Amino acid sequence: MHLGLFLFPAGHHVAAWRHPDANAAAGVDFAWYRDLARKAEAACFDLIFLADGAGARSEDPEVLSRSAHAYVAQFEPITLLSALAASTDRIGLVCTISSSFNEPFHAARKIASLDHISGGRAGWNLVTSASDSEARNFGLDAHLAHAERYERAGEFADVVHALWNSWDADAFVRDKQAGRFFDPAGRHVLNHQGRFFKVKGPLNVPRPPQGRPVTVQAGASEAGRDLAARTADVVFTAQQTLEEARAFRTDLLTRAGRPIRVLPGLFPVVAPTRAEAEDKFATLQDLIHPDTGLDLITGGWLRDVLAKCDLDAPPPELPPTNGSQSRQELLFDMARREGLTLRKLYLRVAGARGHQQVIGTPQDIADAMQERFESGGADGFNIMPPLMPQGLDDFTALVVPELRRRGLFRDRYEGRTLRDHLALEGA
Amino acid sequence: MHLGLFLFPAGHHVAAWRHPDANAAAGVDFAWYRDLARKAEAACFDLIFLADGAGARSEDPEVLSRSAHAYVAQFEPITLLSALAASTDRIGLVCTISSSFNEPFHAARKIASLDHISGGRAGWNLVTSASDSEARNFGLDAHLAHAERYERAGEFADVVHALWNSWDADAFVRDKQAGRFFDPAGRHVLNHQGRFFKVKGPLNVPRPPQGRPVTVQAGASEAGRDLAARTADVVFTAQQTLEEARAFRTDLLTRAGRPIRVLPGLFPVVAPTRAEAEDKFATLQDLIHPDTGLDLITGGWLRDVLAKCDLDAPPPELPPTNGSQSRQELLFDMARREGLTLRKLYLRVAGARGHQQVIGTPQDIADAMQERFESGGADGFNIMPPLMPQGLDDFTALVVPELRRRGLFRDRYEGRTLRDHLALEGA
Repeated sequence: MHLGLFLFPAGHHVAAWRHPDANAAAGVDFAWYRDLARKAEAACFDLIFLADGAGARSEDPEVLSRSAHAYVAQFEPITLLSALAASTDRIGLVCTISSSFNEPFHAARKIASLDHISGGRAGWNLVTSASDSEARNFGLDAHLAHAERYERAGEFADVVHALWNSWDADAFVRDKQAGRFFDPAGRHVLNHQGRFFKVKGPLNVPRPPQGRPVTVQAGASEAGRDLAARTADVVFTAQQTLEEARAFRTDLLTRAGRPIRVLPGLFPVVAPTRAEAEDKFATLQDLIHPDTGLDLITGGWLRDVLAKCDLDAPPPELPPTNGSQSRQELLFDMARREGLTLRKLYLRVAGARGHQQVIGTPQDIADAMQERFESGGADGFNIMPPLMPQGLDDFTALVVPELRRRGLFRDRYEGRTLRDHLALEGA
Repeated sequence: MHLGLFLFPAGHHVAAWRHPDANAAAGVDFAWYRDLARKAEAACFDLIFLADGAGARSEDPEVLSRSAHAYVAQFEPITLLSALAASTDRIGLVCTISSSFNEPFHAARKIASLDHISGGRAGWNLVTSASDSEARNFGLDAHLAHAERYERAGEFADVVHALWNSWDADAFVRDKQAGRFFDPAGRHVLNHQGRFFKVKGPLNVPRPPQGRPVTVQAGASEAGRDLAARTADVVFTAQQTLEEARAFRTDLLTRAGRPIRVLPGLFPVVAPTRAEAEDKFATLQDLIHPDTGLDLITGGWLRDVLAKCDLDAPPPELPPTNGSQSRQELLFDMARREGLTLRKLYLRVAGARGHQQVIGTPQDIADAMQERFESGGADGFNIMPPLMPQGLDDFTALVVPELRRRGLFRDRYEGRTLRDHLALEGA
């Protein structure tokens, strides 16, 4: 079983920063991130993961000002992960870079550089940006339409992967006597010319230690699955039920015809007894402001529509938006399936934001993980502690030993690179 | 007197990597960079500095393959400096980001993030890109014309500086009781709309610890001086003579009407005796390949013209190019002034690449630095050791103590931020 730690300031619960024990300034507290990364490494996690937004997720200062969760005030991820590379030895480092407002040459170069700095521990989470507030920081009035941004993402991934192949592993001969720094035969010019990008290459970084740094994706729409099947090594997902998870993973592996590690998000609230775990969770739920709650379930879209709705009635039928369609459908399907009101829907996703949420004893958490893992719904989990470091400490102290007792999780690293940890072959 | 360490794989001499004692693989050796940064910090240098190229400086594999100096195989600078931030405590970290193939939002965000990670030690070296081989990695066939790229650079700098002012220093109140993460009154939307960029803002990083991270520039052309006078805190320069240096600094400070730290590059070859220093230098000069030499003096431009010239005759009159005009004029003026042949010109600039080169005893080096400093030609120096770590070790062991005996250089840090070290007021 593979474990990632999804880092997020203060914690993954949307009201985490308001908790009396929270570090509300965690977003730009390097020592805080460094300590968490080292704790995850001490517990032999495969990787740490940073999501990203190139701009706040909303432009409404009233809503934004209530939330620490909207990428409004935190480190930029490639700088933070590079600093964490120098503070850790073995754990993988997965950085989100959106294909929507970036150049593939810059992305390929930074991830390759991180792979060299870290000795082969870099991963790249390819996302497409789905908010107009990000687009407006890059000369556009609105973000790209769904189909178009996935087409761009596919070409972007192809260019990045090709740039990582710019140099043969033995190209840099550094022959002092002959005065040859590299063998010209080991240098490959790309000359890519596509719909979105024209990139000559080669990359000006030697071949990354991993060959191809681990490529991660999270899209669950049709276009997202196609892209992941074609280009990803790891997929982060958010299926709620075991059946959905198995169907998703089976579909993805069938499309791909090669190993992909599927890691659903898992939001664990763990305590020695179920009652204590429920109490912990209730403390956080009580701190959620309704504006923040509504914003969470639509990603800022449809706020005007929802503002007119009764919070304590079932959610209305919603028009399609240009936002993240797969996510919105997933949430509203869940509400209809479970008979949730709008308020209960946002309370339900406030923690796990659509990911699997398990509240209970270490055995309860381990049971849920083991079931999904052994039934083919997951190759591991991306752990999303509600409050950090407390939630991570609980997980490593209580759940990890239980997983080890069951023979499900490593007690030491065997390899050096992220590909090693994930048991993915070299590329 | 302010001192920077200009880091470069193996060393600044173009043949450094071929030296028997050189680490020819330094370009992607993180431990090598980390040790140099720590040595510079132990010697109380103000800053370390990384130049950059978003692509190799040439597309000719024969020429490139002989040189480790053309940005062909090294770390990307923002990732490396972020990792070095976690490995040092006090020294400033100056990162080059070109305005030509970047978005100001990305640049502002990464430098702000580095400033938070490092506790106020970040600097941004704004350059314009002057090579077609870089442009071809970003959808263009050729780089921007000189005037256009300086106009873009000016707008880019304005947007970056404005984005750093997105948030008041006290905007993030993080009031847990009231549920207010920030005070909306402390958030400033930019809404920039100019010739090159449209950027709404605000930046999604809190105000950098330095307010405005230190802005560095190196242009010496008219357009470069105007831009530096308007926007820079520090200027790196390459004047050969004391008179040129004084004229440049006086002109710049007059245009600016405020303090700017002018740091000429200095290439020191130091040994206990002059004869030993000359021997050290000769060892490196003997290792230069002619193809590498000619490439150095024109930045790859005019290679066809120069290939037809007699290496042992005076350099020809050259047509203007779209490359770095100020640098080319500086070099060819020097050749005419000193009666150098083409071969002697490239041997002359192979070390310092147009910067001041001093070969001699610790007293000789200190004399040259003191003279330029006290006569108004410099506020300090950007040190370019010919071979590293040896050349840095020589400088810190032999020259720095001599500077301290003369009362010219600090023996401990008094402040915490790069602005503190440079005695620049907060911005």
